[in-house]
Amino acid sequence: MATSPIWASRAKTRGLVLDVIRAAHASSRVELAAATGLTSATISEVVRELMNDGLVVEAGTGASRGGKPRTLVQLNPAARYSVGVQLERNTCVVVVVDLVGRQVARTSFHGPAVLPPDQALPQVAAQVEALLAATAVDRAKVLGVGLVGYGPQDRRTGTLLTPQPTEAWLNYPIAGRLAEILGLPVLLDNDAAAAAIGEYWLGAVDPTSTYGCIYMATGIGGSVVVAGEVYRGTSSNSVEIGHISIDVNGDECTCGNVGCLENYAGPSAVVRRAIAIPGLVQRLALDPTGGDFLTEFARIAAAANAGEPAARSLIEQSARYLGHAAVTMSTLFDVDTIVLAGPSFTVAGSIYQAVIQHEIDRRTFARRAHPVRVVPSINGSDAAANGGAVLVLQNELKLSANLTGQTP
Amino acid sequence: MATSPIWASRAKTRGLVLDVIRAAHASSRVELAAATGLTSATISEVVRELMNDGLVVEAGTGASRGGKPRTLVQLNPAARYSVGVQLERNTCVVVVVDLVGRQVARTSFHGPAVLPPDQALPQVAAQVEALLAATAVDRAKVLGVGLVGYGPQDRRTGTLLTPQPTEAWLNYPIAGRLAEILGLPVLLDNDAAAAAIGEYWLGAVDPTSTYGCIYMATGIGGSVVVAGEVYRGTSSNSVEIGHISIDVNGDECTCGNVGCLENYAGPSAVVRRAIAIPGLVQRLALDPTGGDFLTEFARIAAAANAGEPAARSLIEQSARYLGHAAVTMSTLFDVDTIVLAGPSFTVAGSIYQAVIQHEIDRRTFARRAHPVRVVPSINGSDAAANGGAVLVLQNELKLSANLTGQTP
Repeated sequence: MATSPIWASRAKTRGLVLDVIRAAHASSRVELAAATGLTSATISEVVRELMNDGLVVEAGTGASRGGKPRTLVQLNPAARYSVGVQLERNTCVVVVVDLVGRQVARTSFHGPAVLPPDQALPQVAAQVEALLAATAVDRAKVLGVGLVGYGPQDRRTGTLLTPQPTEAWLNYPIAGRLAEILGLPVLLDNDAAAAAIGEYWLGAVDPTSTYGCIYMATGIGGSVVVAGEVYRGTSSNSVEIGHISIDVNGDECTCGNVGCLENYAGPSAVVRRAIAIPGLVQRLALDPTGGDFLTEFARIAAAANAGEPAARSLIEQSARYLGHAAVTMSTLFDVDTIVLAGPSFTVAGSIYQAVIQHEIDRRTFARRAHPVRVVPSINGSDAAANGGAVLVLQNELKLSANLTGQTP
Repeated sequence: MATSPIWASRAKTRGLVLDVIRAAHASSRVELAAATGLTSATISEVVRELMNDGLVVEAGTGASRGGKPRTLVQLNPAARYSVGVQLERNTCVVVVVDLVGRQVARTSFHGPAVLPPDQALPQVAAQVEALLAATAVDRAKVLGVGLVGYGPQDRRTGTLLTPQPTEAWLNYPIAGRLAEILGLPVLLDNDAAAAAIGEYWLGAVDPTSTYGCIYMATGIGGSVVVAGEVYRGTSSNSVEIGHISIDVNGDECTCGNVGCLENYAGPSAVVRRAIAIPGLVQRLALDPTGGDFLTEFARIAAAANAGEPAARSLIEQSARYLGHAAVTMSTLFDVDTIVLAGPSFTVAGSIYQAVIQHEIDRRTFARRAHPVRVVPSINGSDAAANGGAVLVLQNELKLSANLTGQTP
């Protein structure tokens, strides 16, 4: 198999060194040479360049190993920023993160509902502009925007391949249009993939781990990360766990499959069942006519936490369905960890975590080989937006590493 | 992320060059330099070494591009051999393949049934010895044995993590014991992973493809290959598609999960249903008392091919269940191709292929992004054994490349 040389260009060397520094938080030149396989002369030269560009700064001295103390270098968090936009029908989140992936600003607002993209995207862009202005981040230091949402998508063209929320969104160049309005590069990616890579970037998982992520907002998505890289498959439309079937005899879904997980475990299914239980609408003060079922779902989840028996039973049922699909994820991808991310896990996350862990422990095929841990996301309900911003950083560091060209 | 240099040692360079020659069938030194990123001086030196060791031979001249004609080199098929052993309760297959992965000898025999491993493995070893003797392959040229079977497995220790066929097999060092008897290195791997890598090695799939494999013998297994590498996950116990659930309300399987695919679509399920149909045992001359249900299954599959309505309906039902699970595989792994491999697809393969393709076309999540083709294995019912032998070759070429140490 042909293998292209890793150090074909200086840009890639810079990216490699930056990524090693990022992962280690702080690193000496000797450690960088060991971790990258580059000569110490090359490392010294690259580090000097990165310091001249302001991307890397000295960070005190490390423990001596007999010789003279080693000077540590680390990323300069304020050297660059990126923006994450989580696009959802009901709620959108915009974040700004610094070069180490820390959130420095955040806003959320009502999603576009059924607005066409040519009306919705200028509204999203205005929110990005307002947040950047409020944060007083130097526009020249903003690398780009990670726009994340549901699939199927065509990442190359930055389009959605689904007529959701309306036909006008199908094949509309949402990434290109947003880039045009903002004057910034925009990449389109999957919300669950973004959420998962955010965990890795912020050090919440072992960097060598193969882990899965189940992302629940309005719908249910998934992703798998292998040693810091999102599992992509043929077209980056992978791990769509909300649309795997849990019931061969189930009803047909709008996606074409039958018995899709989302229709059993998702927020809308839980709200629908709650409304059908006599008296529960009154007891939980639900609004059966409301279009925003995420709010109703959060109310049911809160009641479940508080011990209301019917609500508890509904959330546990949703969790068992999710556990059932999590077993499929783990039996197919052989993961060591499953991260639960997204706004719909934030209220009753501990119930979901316990029930899904229980199903995994009983049923996963490889449980004799190793345990599989179910854990909540460290990024909470901002997981997708934070991850979208991190994808921009990762793209710069790992792939193009063209931070030079962007030096203000 | 730390990246270890690809060319840290000469062994790795040799392996890289060998693998590029293998993939290209025949290659000039100039093409090798381009494909590996190595200098032409290094390429010349490595190729000279490989020719001295008899691994590579000259193979005429390639088309000139204006300059003098380029001498091509190719692998010397007879320079090394490897053995593949497919271990199954009912039937075992042993093959010998040459350095380019072509089968040069084959034998099959009744599987160990419920014999304990300390009785079964000497029998397997005797079959390997007999085949090597009959083929007159120089023992010093045999790189090793790829022993492949069901999971879960511990590949590091060469043990099965399941009490099948009996408790005596659980944690028994089957790879180590077989290596001891044969005096050859033995690697243990999954049958479906082996079958899939055999397709790649023999050029049946695009080398950049992400493709899945469904392997059906007594049980049902699966695997995914990404650009020529088996998707491994945490412990190489991945893509166990026979034990994903297709029915959340289904019966509990011996594996611990409920509604497992294998119990709906596998040969034993088909035979069980056939026996329950009044008159069918007589019509198809089935043996309802026989322990070897693969033979009964083949009879039903043959009748289905011949148009017997009840048999046809049984096979189509099995194929629809498999199609249902194939949609899950494709929705999670975003594959571009699904290969059907293993002895239980050989008789009625065209029915399976058509029905599974139909399900994939209607239900796969990413079908708007790209088609997913369902194809039969080019390795037929020897797919796993051939693939086991190929895994030994791949291991040598890609990982250790210590062919030097084995030079006779």
